[in-house]
Amino acid sequence: MSDAKKPWGGRFEKSPSAFLEQYGASLMVDRRMWAQDIKGSIAHARMLAKQGIITSADADEIESGLNDVFRSISEGEFEFRIADEDIHMAIERTLTDKIGTAGGRLHTARSRNDQVALDTRMYCKDAAVDLIGHVNELRSALLHVAQEHHGVVMPGYTHMQKAQPVLFGHHLLAYYWMLTRDVTRLRHAYEAADVLPLGSAALAGTTFDIDRQFVADTLGFDAVGPNSMDSVSDRDFLLDLTYACTVGMVHLSRLCEELILWSTEEFGFITMDDSFSTGSSIMPQKKNPDFAELTRGKTGRVVGDLTGLLVMLKGLPLAYNKDMQEDKEGAFDAIDTFADGLRAMEGMISTMYVNTETMLAGAQGGFMAATDLADYLVGTGMPFRQAHEVVGRLVLKLEREGRTLQDMSTQEFLDTDPAFQADAIDSVDIYGVVARRVSVGGTGNDAVLDQLLVARDALAVDATWTEAHRD
Amino acid sequence: MSDAKKPWGGRFEKSPSAFLEQYGASLMVDRRMWAQDIKGSIAHARMLAKQGIITSADADEIESGLNDVFRSISEGEFEFRIADEDIHMAIERTLTDKIGTAGGRLHTARSRNDQVALDTRMYCKDAAVDLIGHVNELRSALLHVAQEHHGVVMPGYTHMQKAQPVLFGHHLLAYYWMLTRDVTRLRHAYEAADVLPLGSAALAGTTFDIDRQFVADTLGFDAVGPNSMDSVSDRDFLLDLTYACTVGMVHLSRLCEELILWSTEEFGFITMDDSFSTGSSIMPQKKNPDFAELTRGKTGRVVGDLTGLLVMLKGLPLAYNKDMQEDKEGAFDAIDTFADGLRAMEGMISTMYVNTETMLAGAQGGFMAATDLADYLVGTGMPFRQAHEVVGRLVLKLEREGRTLQDMSTQEFLDTDPAFQADAIDSVDIYGVVARRVSVGGTGNDAVLDQLLVARDALAVDATWTEAHRD
Amino acid sequence: MSDAKKPWGGRFEKSPSAFLEQYGASLMVDRRMWAQDIKGSIAHARMLAKQGIITSADADEIESGLNDVFRSISEGEFEFRIADEDIHMAIERTLTDKIGTAGGRLHTARSRNDQVALDTRMYCKDAAVDLIGHVNELRSALLHVAQEHHGVVMPGYTHMQKAQPVLFGHHLLAYYWMLTRDVTRLRHAYEAADVLPLGSAALAGTTFDIDRQFVADTLGFDAVGPNSMDSVSDRDFLLDLTYACTVGMVHLSRLCEELILWSTEEFGFITMDDSFSTGSSIMPQKKNPDFAELTRGKTGRVVGDLTGLLVMLKGLPLAYNKDMQEDKEGAFDAIDTFADGLRAMEGMISTMYVNTETMLAGAQGGFMAATDLADYLVGTGMPFRQAHEVVGRLVLKLEREGRTLQDMSTQEFLDTDPAFQADAIDSVDIYGVVARRVSVGGTGNDAVLDQLLVARDALAVDATWTEAHRD
Amino acid sequence: MSDAKKPWGGRFEKSPSAFLEQYGASLMVDRRMWAQDIKGSIAHARMLAKQGIITSADADEIESGLNDVFRSISEGEFEFRIADEDIHMAIERTLTDKIGTAGGRLHTARSRNDQVALDTRMYCKDAAVDLIGHVNELRSALLHVAQEHHGVVMPGYTHMQKAQPVLFGHHLLAYYWMLTRDVTRLRHAYEAADVLPLGSAALAGTTFDIDRQFVADTLGFDAVGPNSMDSVSDRDFLLDLTYACTVGMVHLSRLCEELILWSTEEFGFITMDDSFSTGSSIMPQKKNPDFAELTRGKTGRVVGDLTGLLVMLKGLPLAYNKDMQEDKEGAFDAIDTFADGLRAMEGMISTMYVNTETMLAGAQGGFMAATDLADYLVGTGMPFRQAHEVVGRLVLKLEREGRTLQDMSTQEFLDTDPAFQADAIDSVDIYGVVARRVSVGGTGNDAVLDQLLVARDALAVDATWTEAHRD
Repeated sequence: MSDAKKPWGGRFEKSPSAFLEQYGASLMVDRRMWAQDIKGSIAHARMLAKQGIITSADADEIESGLNDVFRSISEGEFEFRIADEDIHMAIERTLTDKIGTAGGRLHTARSRNDQVALDTRMYCKDAAVDLIGHVNELRSALLHVAQEHHGVVMPGYTHMQKAQPVLFGHHLLAYYWMLTRDVTRLRHAYEAADVLPLGSAALAGTTFDIDRQFVADTLGFDAVGPNSMDSVSDRDFLLDLTYACTVGMVHLSRLCEELILWSTEEFGFITMDDSFSTGSSIMPQKKNPDFAELTRGKTGRVVGDLTGLLVMLKGLPLAYNKDMQEDKEGAFDAIDTFADGLRAMEGMISTMYVNTETMLAGAQGGFMAATDLADYLVGTGMPFRQAHEVVGRLVLKLEREGRTLQDMSTQEFLDTDPAFQADAIDSVDIYGVVARRVSVGGTGNDAVLDQLLVARDALAVDATWTEAHRD
Repeated sequence: MSDAKKPWGGRFEKSPSAFLEQYGASLMVDRRMWAQDIKGSIAHARMLAKQGIITSADADEIESGLNDVFRSISEGEFEFRIADEDIHMAIERTLTDKIGTAGGRLHTARSRNDQVALDTRMYCKDAAVDLIGHVNELRSALLHVAQEHHGVVMPGYTHMQKAQPVLFGHHLLAYYWMLTRDVTRLRHAYEAADVLPLGSAALAGTTFDIDRQFVADTLGFDAVGPNSMDSVSDRDFLLDLTYACTVGMVHLSRLCEELILWSTEEFGFITMDDSFSTGSSIMPQKKNPDFAELTRGKTGRVVGDLTGLLVMLKGLPLAYNKDMQEDKEGAFDAIDTFADGLRAMEGMISTMYVNTETMLAGAQGGFMAATDLADYLVGTGMPFRQAHEVVGRLVLKLEREGRTLQDMSTQEFLDTDPAFQADAIDSVDIYGVVARRVSVGGTGNDAVLDQLLVARDALAVDATWTEAHRD
Repeated sequence: MSDAKKPWGGRFEKSPSAFLEQYGASLMVDRRMWAQDIKGSIAHARMLAKQGIITSADADEIESGLNDVFRSISEGEFEFRIADEDIHMAIERTLTDKIGTAGGRLHTARSRNDQVALDTRMYCKDAAVDLIGHVNELRSALLHVAQEHHGVVMPGYTHMQKAQPVLFGHHLLAYYWMLTRDVTRLRHAYEAADVLPLGSAALAGTTFDIDRQFVADTLGFDAVGPNSMDSVSDRDFLLDLTYACTVGMVHLSRLCEELILWSTEEFGFITMDDSFSTGSSIMPQKKNPDFAELTRGKTGRVVGDLTGLLVMLKGLPLAYNKDMQEDKEGAFDAIDTFADGLRAMEGMISTMYVNTETMLAGAQGGFMAATDLADYLVGTGMPFRQAHEVVGRLVLKLEREGRTLQDMSTQEFLDTDPAFQADAIDSVDIYGVVARRVSVGGTGNDAVLDQLLVARDALAVDATWTEAHRD
Repeated sequence: MSDAKKPWGGRFEKSPSAFLEQYGASLMVDRRMWAQDIKGSIAHARMLAKQGIITSADADEIESGLNDVFRSISEGEFEFRIADEDIHMAIERTLTDKIGTAGGRLHTARSRNDQVALDTRMYCKDAAVDLIGHVNELRSALLHVAQEHHGVVMPGYTHMQKAQPVLFGHHLLAYYWMLTRDVTRLRHAYEAADVLPLGSAALAGTTFDIDRQFVADTLGFDAVGPNSMDSVSDRDFLLDLTYACTVGMVHLSRLCEELILWSTEEFGFITMDDSFSTGSSIMPQKKNPDFAELTRGKTGRVVGDLTGLLVMLKGLPLAYNKDMQEDKEGAFDAIDTFADGLRAMEGMISTMYVNTETMLAGAQGGFMAATDLADYLVGTGMPFRQAHEVVGRLVLKLEREGRTLQDMSTQEFLDTDPAFQADAIDSVDIYGVVARRVSVGGTGNDAVLDQLLVARDALAVDATWTEAHRD
């Protein structure tokens, strides 16, 4: 049984039990929004004073009191008490304890419904910018490794079968572009959050002569929410941010899968740095790519976070319902998990050792020049489908003999099909196979150099945006 | 056992069985992209001719043959055969049957990997524009009903408990703004799809001297994909579109919930039109809001579609894997379901009968003027928290006596607390309670008129975009 | 940088950074399995001694040392250090600090892979039994309220439209049976966990001559896992338990929805106890069914927990992968959330006030006797479909006139259709409508009394099982 | 606009439009339950006659008419018309067209609500038995391959890193036991469905003197549903079946992942049969494990099916709501997908070529005897943690020298640590490493032979159950 006086206790005869107090409280989840809550309250108080709803003296007292609370929390001295239910009450109660009556006036013309929406939106904007920063660091690491190893050839796979040789940098850049789309998605989430809900009060707006645009300007919001009922029950911005994290984690899971594969003895393309590997409590020889596995596994929880939010919102009537208190924990978990995953990945990429000889050796096998041989035949006028069949038969024959295309003599080419000329043999050199793919976006060395330039420019633009939007 | 010659049959000794043919085929799902496939192939053929990779004569034959296939499919004469595996093969085989050798040249410098990515992106762009059109129609219906019933007062709820009276139009407009955000999300999905993958070939680009920008311009793509491996394995645009549909369905589920509640005998705020109601096979008196329930229920499948896509993509290495064949069915289901749900909702909103007297009667009960009474006290200089408690105690007393705030006499107000003056009684008139909420986004009559203007302008802008992007 | 020596540090040259240590650690999640870990280790040590693998003296030292650790943790004196990574290492390190060399022998013939599987299975068995206990308490509360209000009539709904009158107890018992199925599902999860993994070592079994059956008997396991690779990578039991919690939460969400509806002013069937209601920070009159809403909202997170586990496991090769460290947090969250939801619901059901007059009044409206009137006609020999249509037309006519079936005179029945006789009027009495439904499982008063008996017996059986399986 | 007279048309003035007819119809989904619908109706008619509710002559006419419909559908002559809405109406309308008045009496004492619940339960029981049959076939194939290759050694992995050598058969048997648990889950789903809902009517039971036990006995149900409101709104059995399919698909996805890995050139442990491989339209050399990838990808849709069902059910009040019409499509998709996946997997396992030499070669590398070497040291009395460290340092040294444990001479062992004796060298022979793991469930050759026996017996028991429960 809590002793704290509830802010809504007027009409009630009994207090909730300790279990229910714990069950109903959100403080342990929403306390991380303390800075946003205080900033929002200061802006609200200033507006109230500007509009003559409270006195300037009251506003000054409130602002100074809130600054004290800010200091107290940021220095770790603040004691969070579950009986306060949520961060808004924790701060307001502390403020009122400090400054008395004026503190009670802070809640004029607002409600917990629009207040929590405000804090959450401010938090999400900050989180989106932070996440973009982490994404950009990983993009930067990928660019750096791609450039450092320019020219290194590895097998390219489809269906996990060797398909065509590609540049290692080209392969890494594919992830660079995935991450670039993650930035776009995070910016969309930022924009979704960038609408001021404060002033919607409980659900219907307020009778006080408030100035919402002033609050929006003070807090750096791009727009004022046009409908009070929507403003207090809209959680789209949390969905958008959680969704952005989810897709980002799916992207990381794909890269993790590759790092894990590449770290196997069988592939051997990379060696993870010791700092990103762990051992076994029973098998002394093990060196496991734990952090790649863990990050891949954490994709599940983030998909679960998104699902959870969608399920919670399904079928809720307007306006605010208590179900919505469950909006933050999943979203915060998605934000944290994606941020951690990005950091771990940045570290893995930056420190891994690239076994270029093993990659090249892998690229020599697997008949990966077969497409080029077929293209060669097309160049002689043969329809593609026929060329495909000629080469397919040749591959089958060589495979049975345990040989590869590089083992063929010029004479053997001539004997295989009349369309082959002496220069057929040139089409199966693996470096040539790569270098010839000069179409835009292709793996040819020059095409990849162009791609690196474009990628570097894109990153610079995104980095500028990020710095400009940091709090 | 299929008789059809597989396009990749060269190196194989056995054919898959009938079961596997069925299992592996995507034709029944991807056949809906036939128009996109043909348009894409024509653009590809023109480019090949322009670049001198095939002759103009071949390109003309291909284009004319594809136009025949287009006609044949659009007129319902085309026979889809499961042995063709997918729509790309169905069309190319038919083309080659018709025009011979030239048909075999169409596949030069492309692969099914970039071809299916192209078709799917074109389909998604068209679908996004169509969906925006449907959303706009529902927004238009909501605007119309809101305007038609301007001034109608109903109870506003939080926690499903009566909170404060609101305008019915204000309540409907909350959904208008949700749907406006759905348009934004669909446009983001459109933009995500608006990048040309063709020219990436199987995964590494092509050795042919192709002109990807020409193809992008011909097909109306905004950009050319910068990395071939990413282009053939990127399904973010499908995720984005499916996500947009999912959030949209969650929005519809909330409106459905309200229509179902409002249709109960207990609420009685609306009467669904007969055309949107069904009866019972056993209970002759039943009139059920089936279509609202069904739409709410269909939210589940769309959340499932999104989950399914995310699970499929998790942990896939580069580049194309056959898992990705499972990308379309869920996305198409989400598109269809959201489109149908929007159509059904537009019909329900447009035809429902609004019981304005029942709404008003509901708004009179439930102590919904209590906030205004507390605000009145704040106006006299009382801190909000104290005013809240005074009114809370008054409500509890009246509730026990079976009375409401409107039953109070002026003298009773004066007796309740010294802060009350004679004009306290004016603060509990329900029309006044609504009208006073004139803050931006509030439910006050004038604020809602302003909101209607802003909403109408926003819709006009979106409608213009939509028409400009229809194929 | 952690100072703790890693148990697998032999082959490594660098230590993971502080971030990675935090990222890779599971201690904060798995520490709740400390009791299971210690019990499992004691059983293992005894077996090792029995088999002569370690000396009895060593085993005694280990057991005594572990008992000290047990005491230290249960008394809150144990300091958990993130550098220990997980609960297994935290306990083993502490043990070895205490007793020296013998402690190092405890890990003989086992691995963290089978150890964590053991602990988790023991924890899940305990959790399943606890959850069944909570379910039974809620079932008991439902039985009690159903019996206490036997004979109270309320409207039964389909499509949220009034359908046929039912007994309030019958309605509550529907939830009783849902919860009975939850017990079945939890027992299946218990059985799934009831297989000993210890002895599988890292993945391949062990070379030591261990006695797995002895360990199983000591710890109360029903069977010994038949395949070591499966045993270390099987997480089906966690899926089964999480699934049982998920379905249980969906059940609670349905009951919550009803409690919320019934608490509206419009329905008014129940009044929540003050202890299960909260107020509004801005609206003094509000009394919100917060705990029902919150529990409904928490359904989302549990669906998300299940989804997360499934995603994590998808596509993982044998045997243990680090992804699996992510198996517990979601499952534990599902267990906790379901347990809390059950407790909250038990409280709400036990304390709510039932407004029987409002229920009865509701049952009088809505033409809910229409089916019985049609059945009456069928009794005269009319085919059901025709009877349905006759009554349907009558309902439409009365609705337009603002009357109900109970307003009809005998003469009016006779005038409506020649098949009606003088006794037709009896068929529309609402108490008679309920009482006549005596088919097994029907809402008739006697049928419900029978159902209560069956339900009480079923609960007694389940309660006995639960007590027998408590640790 | 449909011309068909709706069975509930009496009170309505307008018909739904063609779009709504399509939107609201479930016929295309539920038509697959036609046989169950007819069998259920015949049992119902017989009961009605036995109880004297309809005449025997009517019952005979109904049964004979329904048998005609059965024949017509099973021979493909039946024309399904969307205007019939669902399979129940399609069959009843056809029956009434055939036999007139008596047909109209079939619906006495039942409703579509309990009828659809009946049909779906019967269908699920049949589906569960069929699925168990498919699972058993795959188990049988695994057993067969495991036995055929008994003694073949391959590397065992944890974290995808080589850990300890295992028998190939042991590895396959891990999947055998996963599938055995799938059988358990499917049987639980069967039992969940094995409760008769018929007789619950719309929601409240019926006034007719029906005999539900007779219907249960006729149709082979184990029990009669104890509560009519629960019976018409319970979809747990569909959740249970969909869940069983979901976990089964996750299991298949893991095996698929391994088959795909093993088919890579890098691992090379198996060669997929041509009949289970496909090629590339552009790369002539490709031989892709398409069906393993496709099955892995299809895991997503089944997880989505389960999620969709859970979302649909969340928050639904009692009793039947139209949302529930969305219960079948996802469940049916899960059933079909799992059945297909099992068939495809059975084929892949039965036909794959096992490259035993490659497996053995792989088992020789990677220091996989390190644990045994540490165990050897433990055998000399060294604590395990110390032994682990000694061997860990040795592995690091050898790795740097490019050597393995098998390259060590006896002298080198003696020089490494005083605890090593001359027989240390025996502990690193790879066949010995496997053979020594004779603990129950271990990979030792004899232990695996024991396991095969247990597995064969378990399969026989399950096969007997399955045959006994086939319709």
